[in-house]
Amino acid sequence: MSSGEDRLIATYFKPLATAQGALGLTDDAAIYAPPEGHELVLTTDAVVSGIHFLPDDPPETVARKALRVNLSDLAAKGAHPAGCLLTMALPEGTAETWLKCFVAGLQSDSRLYGCPVYGGDTVRTNGPLWASITAFGTLPRGTMVKRAGAKPGDVILVTGTIGDAALGLKLLQDPDHIEQWALSHDEAAHLAGRYRVPQPRTAMAEAVRVLASAAMDVSDGLIGDLAKLCDVSGVSARVDAAKIPLSVAARRAFATAPSLIEVIATGGDDYEILVTIPAGKVAAFRELANTAAVPVTEIGEIVAGREPLQVIDVDGKQLAFAHGSFSHF
Amino acid sequence: MSSGEDRLIATYFKPLATAQGALGLTDDAAIYAPPEGHELVLTTDAVVSGIHFLPDDPPETVARKALRVNLSDLAAKGAHPAGCLLTMALPEGTAETWLKCFVAGLQSDSRLYGCPVYGGDTVRTNGPLWASITAFGTLPRGTMVKRAGAKPGDVILVTGTIGDAALGLKLLQDPDHIEQWALSHDEAAHLAGRYRVPQPRTAMAEAVRVLASAAMDVSDGLIGDLAKLCDVSGVSARVDAAKIPLSVAARRAFATAPSLIEVIATGGDDYEILVTIPAGKVAAFRELANTAAVPVTEIGEIVAGREPLQVIDVDGKQLAFAHGSFSHF
Repeated sequence: MSSGEDRLIATYFKPLATAQGALGLTDDAAIYAPPEGHELVLTTDAVVSGIHFLPDDPPETVARKALRVNLSDLAAKGAHPAGCLLTMALPEGTAETWLKCFVAGLQSDSRLYGCPVYGGDTVRTNGPLWASITAFGTLPRGTMVKRAGAKPGDVILVTGTIGDAALGLKLLQDPDHIEQWALSHDEAAHLAGRYRVPQPRTAMAEAVRVLASAAMDVSDGLIGDLAKLCDVSGVSARVDAAKIPLSVAARRAFATAPSLIEVIATGGDDYEILVTIPAGKVAAFRELANTAAVPVTEIGEIVAGREPLQVIDVDGKQLAFAHGSFSHF
Repeated sequence: MSSGEDRLIATYFKPLATAQGALGLTDDAAIYAPPEGHELVLTTDAVVSGIHFLPDDPPETVARKALRVNLSDLAAKGAHPAGCLLTMALPEGTAETWLKCFVAGLQSDSRLYGCPVYGGDTVRTNGPLWASITAFGTLPRGTMVKRAGAKPGDVILVTGTIGDAALGLKLLQDPDHIEQWALSHDEAAHLAGRYRVPQPRTAMAEAVRVLASAAMDVSDGLIGDLAKLCDVSGVSARVDAAKIPLSVAARRAFATAPSLIEVIATGGDDYEILVTIPAGKVAAFRELANTAAVPVTEIGEIVAGREPLQVIDVDGKQLAFAHGSFSHF
């Protein structure tokens, strides 16, 4: 009397349910209790084929992106991953090999980040394939870092490099850019890889939790996301465009086409952490980042007032962007 | 610099985020801590247009179904709702009035069941509209009722009536059935309503938690779901088909077309609780059900062995069904 969905669960998803409370995905629900003195941080994000990933992206990277965009939120709040629930919709005729590879990608990241699957739902769709993940993490009660909390004088830093994923998407959509931007094969692959597989900064969660006045992950574009952080913090910011950290590949693309600064600064899909640190704690933050082997870069400072944030170019002129932030709407 | 998605969240979803830990949906994540001595029960279920609801179903009922199928899981495990996260995908051109009505339905149920929204994601899709909800509830540590645990001699009971939703779906797909099954307008509306808006048995959560040896919600058809419960419990069951509780409408349809017993017993979407109770506790269970004003009916008993379960007809003959359980796969 086993249904098709039960077979999919038993074959593909059960191996991901390594936590005891997941009950091997044989029940209606799972059990979880945070450690003593801790609380849960909850987030949810979905990826849709043709919107958040390309229909011919490898299934392993689709799975990893679906999980990692959630892990990025947890890291930016100072939380450590504890588990997730996965809902996915499969169009009629989805190959079992596709699903097998998707699960392999999820399993590898689930182990890497210590984020087992606690439950899920598998549904049919007559539209594009999608996966929706709800992830939960833990941290000591009352210590979640919010977007609100940035104070004038705080230093603004970001992890990693900005703009790679947005450039990577452009490349994947139009490979002519590789030549136009004078990129090597490796550089092009780097940018595409950054679009397909974000690097959630889980290793920085503790440093963020202990030292940041405010933080968020950069998912909709650096400038737009910083504007959101400033808005809920009741402050403004001054960003030095020349300090925005670029990868070698992004730097080369930008050198051939300086107008790409807009794509870089507002394109989205970076999944780096944007953080504000009181000036006196920046050295400590840098030290923890160094220990975690995560590059961090100062890009500006928080200023008083509620004016739109200022992005200053190398020549001292203020940059204006048509779109501050990336949105599918 | 506010994006379209931010506007949708601020306008439509923020009013649902009544819990303090939801931070008004202005952050990357939410905070939740279960009460002292309690743990979380986690579940997730999605509804897809054209699969789990009809494209022209009222948006209010789509929202209520999306939440209620999750609340039904929590109730069947003995947990009380605490909150949920909602991800939804909107096709290009979804009317704002549709979204407004969807949110109104969700808000009304969110209040009714004490299940505020803690987070969400709104995405675009070039396919059908869908909504995926992860719900969490709480109960005292170690007391979640599982599917495993049924013992030979335990009495099998179900809440409410069985088969209404499956008949309701048939009616909505082919209104000629109204006449074929000799239904009144009210009876037809009752069946359609049972398909569109399940009644999660939240009021029975405590009785289930304290008295049941095993339980699950009936979502994929009574017989198939009972078979799953028996399977993980390592037992079998004997069900008296004549005792399966039917509404007046289902009884009338069944009287005109006795072959509908298969649709009724295996059709799915019931969202009632299937529970096994040790014989000595049945009276107490009935009393609590009575207090909660939830009808409960004995339909059979758990027997030793691992044979396929027996469904016995009024004339003592064993019924065999082509499909034990409903599955979209």
